[in-house]
Amino acid sequence: MWVTPLPALLVSSGLTGPAAIPLSMLLVFVSAKLMAEVFERLNQPGIVGEIFAGVLIGPSVFGWLAPGEFLSALADLGAMFLLFRVGLEVKSSELMKVGGTATLVACTGVVVPFVMGWAILLLWGEPSNEAIFVGASMVATSVGITAQVLSAKGLLHLVSSRIILAAAVIDDVLGLLVLAVVSSLTHGKLNILQLVITAFMAVAFTVIVAKWGTHAMERVIPHVERKLRLGESQFVLSMSLLFALSVLAVYIGVAAIVGAFLAGMALAESTGPRVRHLSNGVAELLVPFFLAGIGLHVDLSAFSNWSNALLAMTILAAAIVSKFIGCGLGALGMGKVDALRIGVGMIPRGEVGMVVAQMGLSFGIIRQNIYGIVVFMSVATTIVAPPLIKLAYRGIRPVVRPELAGLPEEEVFRME
Amino acid sequence: MWVTPLPALLVSSGLTGPAAIPLSMLLVFVSAKLMAEVFERLNQPGIVGEIFAGVLIGPSVFGWLAPGEFLSALADLGAMFLLFRVGLEVKSSELMKVGGTATLVACTGVVVPFVMGWAILLLWGEPSNEAIFVGASMVATSVGITAQVLSAKGLLHLVSSRIILAAAVIDDVLGLLVLAVVSSLTHGKLNILQLVITAFMAVAFTVIVAKWGTHAMERVIPHVERKLRLGESQFVLSMSLLFALSVLAVYIGVAAIVGAFLAGMALAESTGPRVRHLSNGVAELLVPFFLAGIGLHVDLSAFSNWSNALLAMTILAAAIVSKFIGCGLGALGMGKVDALRIGVGMIPRGEVGMVVAQMGLSFGIIRQNIYGIVVFMSVATTIVAPPLIKLAYRGIRPVVRPELAGLPEEEVFRME
Repeated sequence: MWVTPLPALLVSSGLTGPAAIPLSMLLVFVSAKLMAEVFERLNQPGIVGEIFAGVLIGPSVFGWLAPGEFLSALADLGAMFLLFRVGLEVKSSELMKVGGTATLVACTGVVVPFVMGWAILLLWGEPSNEAIFVGASMVATSVGITAQVLSAKGLLHLVSSRIILAAAVIDDVLGLLVLAVVSSLTHGKLNILQLVITAFMAVAFTVIVAKWGTHAMERVIPHVERKLRLGESQFVLSMSLLFALSVLAVYIGVAAIVGAFLAGMALAESTGPRVRHLSNGVAELLVPFFLAGIGLHVDLSAFSNWSNALLAMTILAAAIVSKFIGCGLGALGMGKVDALRIGVGMIPRGEVGMVVAQMGLSFGIIRQNIYGIVVFMSVATTIVAPPLIKLAYRGIRPVVRPELAGLPEEEVFRME
Repeated sequence: MWVTPLPALLVSSGLTGPAAIPLSMLLVFVSAKLMAEVFERLNQPGIVGEIFAGVLIGPSVFGWLAPGEFLSALADLGAMFLLFRVGLEVKSSELMKVGGTATLVACTGVVVPFVMGWAILLLWGEPSNEAIFVGASMVATSVGITAQVLSAKGLLHLVSSRIILAAAVIDDVLGLLVLAVVSSLTHGKLNILQLVITAFMAVAFTVIVAKWGTHAMERVIPHVERKLRLGESQFVLSMSLLFALSVLAVYIGVAAIVGAFLAGMALAESTGPRVRHLSNGVAELLVPFFLAGIGLHVDLSAFSNWSNALLAMTILAAAIVSKFIGCGLGALGMGKVDALRIGVGMIPRGEVGMVVAQMGLSFGIIRQNIYGIVVFMSVATTIVAPPLIKLAYRGIRPVVRPELAGLPEEEVFRME
């Protein structure tokens, strides 16, 4: 830990005083954008630079900032606005069309990582309960990273992108069930009825909003907008739906970002460019906090000794390979090209794995060193995925999809 | 306190769990916009409805939410983006032109409220130190409310609006000095050198940025923008300047919003409509948190007994009258019409008075009941001001200024 004196002084004096808010905004935003610029110049995805900025300013390197209540809240909001923005670009009818493939992708993409994580921990000689929790923490894809890459590169219209988004939503529901099963198993009692209700609620919420949300909003928005005297009433209605569905999603048990995504999708055909402009502004400001926020969580104590480091690297490799193979297998019916893209696109774990590990830690089932390894795996998969997505598209250059034709490859990947 | 069971349950269960963020966003945003709609329909300014929403959902009425770290941070950011957006619409050269009048307005607007507050407390038989602190808490205008009204109604181009903005900035510097003098007097030692340095730094920062900021940005922005590979590089640069000047302002001793306003003004002539669109989005989302956040602080304990209530109403009346007379006197040279507008526009105290009172409370100089009265005065002036501004413009309808000609009065006041 090489803490440079001046900024550390600034931070320590500033983070309790009235400069706390603007100073932490300045540090995170500027460092994220600086690193994005550096990575772009190195011909790497800027998004990785923004995550890496969080690692740099976080506790493991410079120690200028630690993840706190305010920064975590901005990160959550950033993820919500990111998914909301992506939802605005996706038609729910097109997402429903790929539902079958997406369900298959999500299921195989849950089973393979779970089994692999569980098996590795058992082979390593760790307790069975801990192995189950690590397996569970490798299950849930964090769609934010891939969605940001696809959105920034203008690739959301591809079939493979739609499958990734739909599969990530289903994956979140499955992850909820896996977590419910795992945490009741480790407590010794499994309430099947409770589980069925949870599953039913989550599926019903998602399907109802995806299927009828667009139609409902097409009727409600113009009507309410006409009645309101407020300025920017369309934006006000959109934000209200965004927060309402996010809250509902959390109460039902899925992630807030699933609600945000569904809200965006429901509004995709009823809101004008003004709502897109305004919510883009919020996303442009807050997405760096989501990205750098992931990096802030990195804890290099996972590398405190050789045995730990080896396990961390093994788990990371397994996380990458298992999701790639699991989701790729499920998508093989789409052809090898799309299977490859989908497999790579589902790799990032991000905050979801950390939440599972955190729960295991609080139950006393996961030990501190294993927790550190899961956090490392979660962050590292988000850093590894964007270049792999780039690679996945590079490798298949001869098989240019019609949607991409006309766009020089370089352009497609420079847009971010 | 009538706490309805369901929402209270939602809040208490949600504000610790993963729904905390979207739920508090939903509650504040939706209630603010609902009340704004109600007030618009009652032909009252929507901005007052948004403040009132904070009173309603806050501890003094429904008790759904209390001001916490996250909501306070969003409120601070909201105020910063509000002033940044206002700054983007103001040319620094035009602000410098009215510097003389604005300085006079700021000075008389500081002296009259201070003396009045101090005298009332002394006449009420309170200790001299407490009287001095209450006087000091009545000094600083909170420019956010008036800026939002003027901006929403499209009145920022008027000379009187520019004088209000410039006077509010100078007022903040004067408020800093009054606070420094008051807190050293009550501690028994007054460090003149320290005071001169503080004053010099604050004035130098403000004048340098106001005078040369625009020119510097006109040179820097296009140059840096050309070099950057990042997307939305102009927005990234603007946000960086916004946060950097806000931090600098706080370190120098003035409010973060002064830095935000100066940042906007420096960028007014070098950034395109894209930056305005994007930062408008952030402002549209966050300004309701600033407004409702003021209301959240209302503490009706100021009305726990008749003597307190009488003092609270006296202080409120004095706060309104003293600022109106003080600033109006300073602006008499502009003619009665503008003097009236400026006097009314400087009435809101908002968060600044609360900070002073908080400091007095922590020094043990201000007692809890007087603190409650100052908070009441601060919030009530922000609620009283917007209708008074409306009234001030109504009363002078025959003297239509050339800038306003052509705009039907109704339109001007409906735009918000």
